[in-house]
Amino acid sequence: MAMPEKLELTELTTLKRLPERGRFEREVIDAIIDSALICHLGFVVDDQPYVIPTICARVSDTLYVHGSAASRMLRSIGDGRRVCATMTHIDGLVVARSAFHHSMNYRSVVVLGSARLVEEDDEKTLALDAVVDHILPGRPSEVRAHTRNELAATKVLAMPITEASAKLRVGGPVDDEDDLGAPVWAGTIALRVVAGAAVAAGDLRPGIAVPASVRAALSR
Amino acid sequence: MAMPEKLELTELTTLKRLPERGRFEREVIDAIIDSALICHLGFVVDDQPYVIPTICARVSDTLYVHGSAASRMLRSIGDGRRVCATMTHIDGLVVARSAFHHSMNYRSVVVLGSARLVEEDDEKTLALDAVVDHILPGRPSEVRAHTRNELAATKVLAMPITEASAKLRVGGPVDDEDDLGAPVWAGTIALRVVAGAAVAAGDLRPGIAVPASVRAALSR
Repeated sequence: MAMPEKLELTELTTLKRLPERGRFEREVIDAIIDSALICHLGFVVDDQPYVIPTICARVSDTLYVHGSAASRMLRSIGDGRRVCATMTHIDGLVVARSAFHHSMNYRSVVVLGSARLVEEDDEKTLALDAVVDHILPGRPSEVRAHTRNELAATKVLAMPITEASAKLRVGGPVDDEDDLGAPVWAGTIALRVVAGAAVAAGDLRPGIAVPASVRAALSR
Repeated sequence: MAMPEKLELTELTTLKRLPERGRFEREVIDAIIDSALICHLGFVVDDQPYVIPTICARVSDTLYVHGSAASRMLRSIGDGRRVCATMTHIDGLVVARSAFHHSMNYRSVVVLGSARLVEEDDEKTLALDAVVDHILPGRPSEVRAHTRNELAATKVLAMPITEASAKLRVGGPVDDEDDLGAPVWAGTIALRVVAGAAVAAGDLRPGIAVPASVRAALSR
């Protein structure tokens, strides 16, 4: 199913607070998802919500999730119950003249929906390649194909990106008029994630060069 | 109530998968919470879980949350229902010889429990100062005190840190024996969050120096 360029507001994704920060354009949502290394996946078991960090990737209108807490998570949510996947980037600290107006610049997306367990090997392969490619673009073509055992041992969830919204804050502090004359510094501090060096595994055979995917990650 | 040095495993916090990655020492849990800029807070409304990124801070055995989605969140979870707060640090990418063994190095904490709405001005002040201090240590002493109106306009949730667990992965890739001879690079790429420059607000009065709290943040 093709997703409209701009998602319809549903009762659930309508922002209740600071609606001017909400964005529903497909390209804004996709860009935030595609640049997030992980999502935080929320699901409910016996009235207790759990929020688990997990690797994910988008393919067209589907969000694939394949995570380290896979066992409990998949047992709990492959049955079609409602879940929530949230991606967040912290872009900076907003330093205001009053404690009250301190804030952060950020971009986040919330995807609501039901997840299905991916059963078919072809879709599973697509999803796993997407997950690796998402984290390290180009890497799937540098490694061997998945084995049948690996596919059998791997569980993947798929979630449609149909009920989603983005929220973001940019810019400097917004202080109260009364505080503007105070001798107090205000401004922003940008934050970003940077890569260190590529450190070879202790058991790497000699003479193997750092591949293109890793070189690209270092220069991000 | 003092929290034991090592939290008891409960049925909910017992890790179901890769239990060797689980850590329950108080100092490990505290360090992960204290170095996280935000948590992802999970709560349930009408069987739909929501996961919202929000600013938080620990004071002793209490996690205080005060977030941008405060309105819906607080209406929904101040009533004592179960919530989950998760903090995650991504420390690096783990590049393996097979797609299957790609991973990430990370540290995360999951706190389960019920949240109460903080009503008392003294505790609210403590919590709000803790939140600002958490993000920018020393900042509360550089700004004026909260006004009564600000306290009235602010809602804060408190959650006991009694049912919590940490999970982490460190180190290089763990490849299959059969892949060790392959001519494929493997290793790790460390990731970290760095601060850019301090950018003064457009309406900052001339002659106000960058304060100690901001200078400290820049050198982190």
